[in-house]
Amino acid sequence: MGVILYELMGVNDLRFSPYCWRTRMALAHKGITPERVGMRYSDKEIIAFSGQGKVPVLVDNGHTIADSLAIACHLEEAYPGAPSLFGGHVGRGLSRFINSWADTRLNPLLLWLAFRDLLERVDPNDRAYFLESRLQRMDATLEALDEQRGAFHKRFQEELKPLADLFSHQSWVSGDMPAYADYIVFGTLHWARLVCDRDLLAEQELIRTWYGQMLDLHDGEARKVVG
Amino acid sequence: MGVILYELMGVNDLRFSPYCWRTRMALAHKGITPERVGMRYSDKEIIAFSGQGKVPVLVDNGHTIADSLAIACHLEEAYPGAPSLFGGHVGRGLSRFINSWADTRLNPLLLWLAFRDLLERVDPNDRAYFLESRLQRMDATLEALDEQRGAFHKRFQEELKPLADLFSHQSWVSGDMPAYADYIVFGTLHWARLVCDRDLLAEQELIRTWYGQMLDLHDGEARKVVG
Repeated sequence: MGVILYELMGVNDLRFSPYCWRTRMALAHKGITPERVGMRYSDKEIIAFSGQGKVPVLVDNGHTIADSLAIACHLEEAYPGAPSLFGGHVGRGLSRFINSWADTRLNPLLLWLAFRDLLERVDPNDRAYFLESRLQRMDATLEALDEQRGAFHKRFQEELKPLADLFSHQSWVSGDMPAYADYIVFGTLHWARLVCDRDLLAEQELIRTWYGQMLDLHDGEARKVVG
Repeated sequence: MGVILYELMGVNDLRFSPYCWRTRMALAHKGITPERVGMRYSDKEIIAFSGQGKVPVLVDNGHTIADSLAIACHLEEAYPGAPSLFGGHVGRGLSRFINSWADTRLNPLLLWLAFRDLLERVDPNDRAYFLESRLQRMDATLEALDEQRGAFHKRFQEELKPLADLFSHQSWVSGDMPAYADYIVFGTLHWARLVCDRDLLAEQELIRTWYGQMLDLHDGEARKVVG
């Protein structure tokens, strides 16, 4: 029956969702090549069978899982013979902290910072929905976001401090080898690279080095998109 | 020869250093009861044998180790039969991220926020040194810190978001059971509790619950200090 990954799809079939990249890299880590199905925000009926409205959704041989971290936990359990995503219980527990850190500190800030760029990258059919729902979520206006863009950039650099400090001690988020926590952080920074006109890592030499190594992983799975 | 832990000592023998608490809890986790030697900032000659000037310093049967994370790595290697601090390579790698997060995001902010309180808790002999060296490190004046205290409190609550989000999913930083990453975060929040007049967790129900569980660990090792 195979493995199907439902992903968010932007203009020109651009796949930029940070959450979908987490799953795409986790699948590559496990040596799985899924059938990839693109979906616009306005195509939510495509994943209605999953009982919710967000991608990624994975269908693994008839078994449906939503939420990127739940998918990673499923892959770890269902494919124990392939390289581990968590390296044990503590690794899984701490990967969830990284998930919470990216979701509560990095991603909201990036949404503010890159909002105009994002708006250009979502499918034209999705723009009105995206504009309204996200401004409501951020409790902001486009003009207010524009005004604060410089401040958001500075704050984003501040938020990256733990990562820069980490890479002065080790090569990967997860230690000596890349694992799921690397894919979580990568999803966020790859999203930034794919949608944001500004280079957010210009001042971040150590993080840029790691990012380049991430692009090379799994036969350059992510590099194919950015060249 | 035994195990000796050199710790920072404040007024009335108060042991508040977040870095020393990491090590004290890691030792308890491994079932080791060290001889504990208190030291003031002005007593640095006591640890001169370690080749540097910061506590914690551990002397494990004649072997000297400085830096809390290096000590944890030593304990994990030297006492493999006792409960694990990292649960494997990925757990160790990600614990270092938590270390970087606490050191770059939480601890500097707490230093600003609780500076007046801290100044009262350091040994009287250390006050002049502490005042000058820390204000220089923060590039601030006492008056500027006072003015921004409310803003620092708000920012600290923001910085705790990953932790609050995490505890809506699991009971410990490290997953199902406490491990070294819990001790890193605990060191910071226990420091806050021991020196800060203001309850920094008043709005943080989930984090408060975890903190209470941490106080109970290892026969209430940390609760002995706060009652």
